[in-house]
Amino acid sequence: MNTRVAIIGAGPCGLAQLRAFQSARDRGAEIPEIVCFEKQKDWGGMWNYTWRTGLDEHGEAVHGSMYRYLWSNGPKECLEFADYSFDEHFGRPIASYPPREVLWDYIQGRVNKAGVRPYIRFQTAVRSVVWDQARKVFSVTAHDHASGVTDTSDFDYVINACGHFSTPNVPELQGFASFGGRILHAHDFRDALEFKGRDVLIIGASYSAEDIGSQCYKYGARSITSCYRSAPMGYQWPANWEEKPMLQRLEGKVAHFADGTHKSVDAVILCTGYQHHFPFLPDDLALKTTNRLWPLQLYKGVLWEDNPRFMYLGMQDQWYSFNMFDAQAWYARDVILGRIVVPDKATMQAQNLALRAQEETLETAKQMFEFQGAYIQDLVDATDYPSFDIAGVNATFLAWKHDKYEDIMGYRNKSYRSLMTGTQSPGHHTPWLDALDDSMAAYLAEPATAKRA
Amino acid sequence: MNTRVAIIGAGPCGLAQLRAFQSARDRGAEIPEIVCFEKQKDWGGMWNYTWRTGLDEHGEAVHGSMYRYLWSNGPKECLEFADYSFDEHFGRPIASYPPREVLWDYIQGRVNKAGVRPYIRFQTAVRSVVWDQARKVFSVTAHDHASGVTDTSDFDYVINACGHFSTPNVPELQGFASFGGRILHAHDFRDALEFKGRDVLIIGASYSAEDIGSQCYKYGARSITSCYRSAPMGYQWPANWEEKPMLQRLEGKVAHFADGTHKSVDAVILCTGYQHHFPFLPDDLALKTTNRLWPLQLYKGVLWEDNPRFMYLGMQDQWYSFNMFDAQAWYARDVILGRIVVPDKATMQAQNLALRAQEETLETAKQMFEFQGAYIQDLVDATDYPSFDIAGVNATFLAWKHDKYEDIMGYRNKSYRSLMTGTQSPGHHTPWLDALDDSMAAYLAEPATAKRA
Repeated sequence: MNTRVAIIGAGPCGLAQLRAFQSARDRGAEIPEIVCFEKQKDWGGMWNYTWRTGLDEHGEAVHGSMYRYLWSNGPKECLEFADYSFDEHFGRPIASYPPREVLWDYIQGRVNKAGVRPYIRFQTAVRSVVWDQARKVFSVTAHDHASGVTDTSDFDYVINACGHFSTPNVPELQGFASFGGRILHAHDFRDALEFKGRDVLIIGASYSAEDIGSQCYKYGARSITSCYRSAPMGYQWPANWEEKPMLQRLEGKVAHFADGTHKSVDAVILCTGYQHHFPFLPDDLALKTTNRLWPLQLYKGVLWEDNPRFMYLGMQDQWYSFNMFDAQAWYARDVILGRIVVPDKATMQAQNLALRAQEETLETAKQMFEFQGAYIQDLVDATDYPSFDIAGVNATFLAWKHDKYEDIMGYRNKSYRSLMTGTQSPGHHTPWLDALDDSMAAYLAEPATAKRA
Repeated sequence: MNTRVAIIGAGPCGLAQLRAFQSARDRGAEIPEIVCFEKQKDWGGMWNYTWRTGLDEHGEAVHGSMYRYLWSNGPKECLEFADYSFDEHFGRPIASYPPREVLWDYIQGRVNKAGVRPYIRFQTAVRSVVWDQARKVFSVTAHDHASGVTDTSDFDYVINACGHFSTPNVPELQGFASFGGRILHAHDFRDALEFKGRDVLIIGASYSAEDIGSQCYKYGARSITSCYRSAPMGYQWPANWEEKPMLQRLEGKVAHFADGTHKSVDAVILCTGYQHHFPFLPDDLALKTTNRLWPLQLYKGVLWEDNPRFMYLGMQDQWYSFNMFDAQAWYARDVILGRIVVPDKATMQAQNLALRAQEETLETAKQMFEFQGAYIQDLVDATDYPSFDIAGVNATFLAWKHDKYEDIMGYRNKSYRSLMTGTQSPGHHTPWLDALDDSMAAYLAEPATAKRA
């Protein structure tokens, strides 16, 4: 097989793609030549924590938006790989909301087992992708920071697996330029201890706002004030956390809100979302979308309509994550292997528009993760990715939403049953609010050991 | 004239280049078609302050390393334009160490007068520059964030004026990943008030370390600890500022130094320099150098030896700044206008190596600014840039060095005589340490008014 495939990024999506090809090869398929370009020194994408912010040691934009002490904000049972269970990786049941290092270890376990690391060119940043219509190839130019060399080579397919939670969306509000403290986007948030004893203002009302605010609370911020554009998050917050309507302006260190109230704050954290940002892509290959469940122009959420040899993984808003990336990667693989026939553009567009119309009718969270679950089922049905209990995952999402509304600071103490193995997770040995050590060692320690530590 | 010239960046270097061409046109010369690409929304480069850090609103790396409350750290008499004096701009003598906004105003005054703003494409980031040997043109690809369109066009000359103090050099030391506070590079330093009451650790012993530490002191840090690799800065620091040999490691919030001492710190500021970083350039056009007085491969410090149609401005370590950029821009202009004949490559290389050999013998600061002064004189002699008293500037640099060693927190209260107009600067109405308001209005206020404010 003379086909060449470029994968951009070795995070959960890129690694899913490598695993998909390796899985086919193990079952006897001939697979293409694969090069996976990874800007960072190691794999895992977001899950490969870095203390760096802004630009990295090579002057590249830091990929990571990961912060210290992050624990999964959804049950691990909802993101479990269908072909590599938590049970297989850890050898015993573990609790349902693992901290970052535990999930990173899990992600690595599968790809270490698959032996796909040699496909990856680390510390290599893709600079441009250009489609050559005459030769029907993509020219991919990348800079290898280890050698200092930029090179260009041709590929028959390119899979953009670089994620969309790396380029912050950073609005400017009145008074930012003269605020006498720190203003940062969630992308640059690293260590909640920096805000211990401080009055923190959080702008936003989605997952980053909820979780970064909770981190600041857990690690001792004096107060948290969060503000929203459309609606409050509405959880039962601790006494020193207040939700307010949108910030109107800063005057010195005083924040003024839409309801006429004000509060002096030490830091402003912009939890204002991320941009789909692909500066290495020409206009005719670059997906332009907000963060939503059904971006247009991607057939099956994967194939770039204008040129289906260009593919995207994980570009949707995510209820499902790791196993959705898997389903997409298996689908992309089977298109490349010729097992799936790509319809004509009109058919792709029509299907996309129908799904967009359906997406636009969704109102409740339940409807949304069911929509995404059905999408994943459709992909799974088309490939040999192990079928799994999507209705069960949807039910787990629903329980999780309920648990959060019951106790926003306690929902991570709950446990669930695996939809892959049926294993019931044990409760964690320490309530999340008291578990200040987020290391894998502490997480996996036996209760008695953990208590002594 | 059908020649097309691209200028990358509308900071002091790019603006000097625009002014150089406009000046020739005003004297009757036919000038090329010029497009100046500027990533930011406004001109002035570093001097166009932004509160943003990391990535900007368009996902581009933030250009600015400028912080609030920055005052010139050298006498304005050393950087004065030879063709546009401070007297002309402000209409009266002003003090010798202006804050940022005053210098930005001065830079803008000249180019507003010249009327060169229409040449600039703002919010347009250059993505790539490729030399086409067959057609003898550069293809410049740029993304216009206002329109969302990426386009490519051909130029006969490209002048890289994007500066080299935007991409931080960020080393990792032991314990950084588990430090419970903020770690930032000087590039991301914005507001000293963030560190009020805090124990600040500064890594480095050059201009950023000296000035950012002084800012933190001035705006109320509890203590400043700075550490050096080779030698201490050696100034007479305030009582709460200590110089130590290099940081060996952080343990939690405790910094351990090479002399065996340790100190608990709240923040770490890496004043560890910048990289010459041009991700939009192919290897065969990209200058690779440390920050030094004579980088190789640039004939006259400007023309890229391998392809003299590609030019760089301001890539040297800088004692001289604005007027050096001018001398380089006038030289680049006259090469493009055919007024200066470029020698063959061997001649360029020989001259470069001779200058590098000379650079390597320099030991004292005096020898270094004299070396740079002689270089500027050489450029000025080759063009119609107004000749100015370079020996006088050198003498001013020497006095400045002396003033700093006398009183590091008081040297900005000194004043000097203009080498362009002969005007003696008045003393500033308020000692620098007491002047907490760095606005142009406060700076230019009459002493009586300033006292009332």
